[in-house]
Amino acid sequence: MSRYERPNIAQMQGYTWGEQPEDGQTIKLNTNENHYPPTPEVQRALADIDVSRLRTYPQPTADLLREAIAQTHALTRDNVVVTHAGDEALRLAITTFVEPGQSFGMANPSYSLYPVLAAIHDTRMVSVDLQADWSWPEDFAAQLNSAGVQLTCVVNPHAPSGILCALGKLSKLANDLHGVLLIDEAYADFIDPVLNYNSSELLSKHDNVLILRTFSKGYSLAGLRLGYLLGDKQLIDPIISKTRDSYNIDHISQTLGLAAIKDQTYAQQTWHQVRTARESLQQNLAQLGLPSPPSQTNFLLVEVPPTLPRNAKALYLLLKEAGILVRHFNTPELEYRLRITVGTPEQNQRLLETLTRLLT
Amino acid sequence: MSRYERPNIAQMQGYTWGEQPEDGQTIKLNTNENHYPPTPEVQRALADIDVSRLRTYPQPTADLLREAIAQTHALTRDNVVVTHAGDEALRLAITTFVEPGQSFGMANPSYSLYPVLAAIHDTRMVSVDLQADWSWPEDFAAQLNSAGVQLTCVVNPHAPSGILCALGKLSKLANDLHGVLLIDEAYADFIDPVLNYNSSELLSKHDNVLILRTFSKGYSLAGLRLGYLLGDKQLIDPIISKTRDSYNIDHISQTLGLAAIKDQTYAQQTWHQVRTARESLQQNLAQLGLPSPPSQTNFLLVEVPPTLPRNAKALYLLLKEAGILVRHFNTPELEYRLRITVGTPEQNQRLLETLTRLLT
Repeated sequence: MSRYERPNIAQMQGYTWGEQPEDGQTIKLNTNENHYPPTPEVQRALADIDVSRLRTYPQPTADLLREAIAQTHALTRDNVVVTHAGDEALRLAITTFVEPGQSFGMANPSYSLYPVLAAIHDTRMVSVDLQADWSWPEDFAAQLNSAGVQLTCVVNPHAPSGILCALGKLSKLANDLHGVLLIDEAYADFIDPVLNYNSSELLSKHDNVLILRTFSKGYSLAGLRLGYLLGDKQLIDPIISKTRDSYNIDHISQTLGLAAIKDQTYAQQTWHQVRTARESLQQNLAQLGLPSPPSQTNFLLVEVPPTLPRNAKALYLLLKEAGILVRHFNTPELEYRLRITVGTPEQNQRLLETLTRLLT
Repeated sequence: MSRYERPNIAQMQGYTWGEQPEDGQTIKLNTNENHYPPTPEVQRALADIDVSRLRTYPQPTADLLREAIAQTHALTRDNVVVTHAGDEALRLAITTFVEPGQSFGMANPSYSLYPVLAAIHDTRMVSVDLQADWSWPEDFAAQLNSAGVQLTCVVNPHAPSGILCALGKLSKLANDLHGVLLIDEAYADFIDPVLNYNSSELLSKHDNVLILRTFSKGYSLAGLRLGYLLGDKQLIDPIISKTRDSYNIDHISQTLGLAAIKDQTYAQQTWHQVRTARESLQQNLAQLGLPSPPSQTNFLLVEVPPTLPRNAKALYLLLKEAGILVRHFNTPELEYRLRITVGTPEQNQRLLETLTRLLT
């Protein structure tokens, strides 16, 4: 450890990322990547890039992409800031709205990056335990307010359970909270359209709501690092003009992101395919004795009941040995469960065959 | 202004970026971009990218690129962290080594982003005025130490003067400072090789030195946002494992950066061309009555003496009208000067012809 490091940095643990084998053989169902490639329009846009354009700085505020994102959500450009994936969006929300030494709120369990960002910012993490059915306790807002929380992040649909919280509940939470509410919608593209979930409606009613979206899952671009925040102009302004790094989005990402978001037809097809595979996988897993809550994401949180011949951790290790990676979390709330990304029908079939072998 | 904004954010001014016309006509000599395209290897690497690789997360620590950077500087991978251009490198140094409420040091004038980063981090900016010859005052380190400065950034070669500070002086400063010294070498690729400037030698002698480099200028990749920090393993470690965003470098940037840094032959050719053009431009400008200090960068800071028929600001505006952008800073130290990027021989010729017309 360097004697120059800040004490809060020296004491903290960094974020642990999911395993990323580069062997090309492993079936990766551990980090919720999309198993369909990005639209062919992305390859076309890439082929059209003249690298001599990279000599000069990118457009500082990614305005063409901002415009396209605004249109997709029936908002205006002023409601959008493009970010270097969801990670930058979360960091910028903390930087802009939370005083070091003050408080940042979350529901537990959820995204394990939140406490890491709080530690870097030297801010107190107020973590409120979810109930057995993964819903917030009645006094969620009251607990956060009494702790002086300035920014609360909730994942919706929830990770790792996959459960969708209704807009009415989010609107009530936004009303009740004294600080900013960031709805982390990393997985929202996979929500069944019949549910009519459209959170951008909240923005006209609440000046304290930020919605986070990412190109990583829905647009199959985790390797590109592209995301965005939607919110009231007053919340977006200081992020655009003050707290983000100038030129935070490179020229190639602006170009490819634009190609991806414009091809809504292709994107919606892949989301439909993921939903179809999700339902089938969920039923088949349940038949093997591995139930999971209803998921509106591209993953399932399966329970491994004690009546089965293997526990969750053993299953994770045996699957890994068989070339299939799923996610096991070593925490009291999650140790009896596995988070499994919905793969292609072929990958899901391989998973089910392997699990059948391991459980019978 | 939103009532949710932190007070320090609400009060501060954001960074003002240089003008970026997208007309393709303007001769841009205002933001120190390289006027030679990146190596053809970058175009080749881009053409080889299969976008289906973007489905998955990038290699989290950009290790192939880290390795290549380490080799270029005769260091090991542990001495390198790849960053989203120099901006992220500066932000991460502040995040890791400066307590909010404590102090961050710079010499004045230098990079106008430093005070912006200090304001975001809610840290006191200790700005020590340079002497008339752009050198530090004798008591530079003493002033910084007595203000409790935890991190000092010096640009070398200096911007906006272009003057190179010798390694011996930097080594003495590193010795004298109580905090971390970051040497911002954004323009170091353009230093004449006969000067044998090799600052990575400092790293074996000082555990408090960070060296910042960027692909923006020397490798003609400003549009890509790629840079790095070199330093003692103890300084680099917390940045790699704690304070940077996980997956801070996207897959395409890792790939193109590797192609660029491996083609040292091409890069060195363009640096040589810039130096040749710089010397010729400097002489010709001096003959027009516009002298500039000896520059080891890709720009010149010309003085516009009061004996000339136009002052600096008028020249800036008239050049702009003629389709040539240069940089004028509205500060007491710089208002009688223009910062002019070295262009291609043709661009420099156009500039000289236009200036001749305006000054005679």
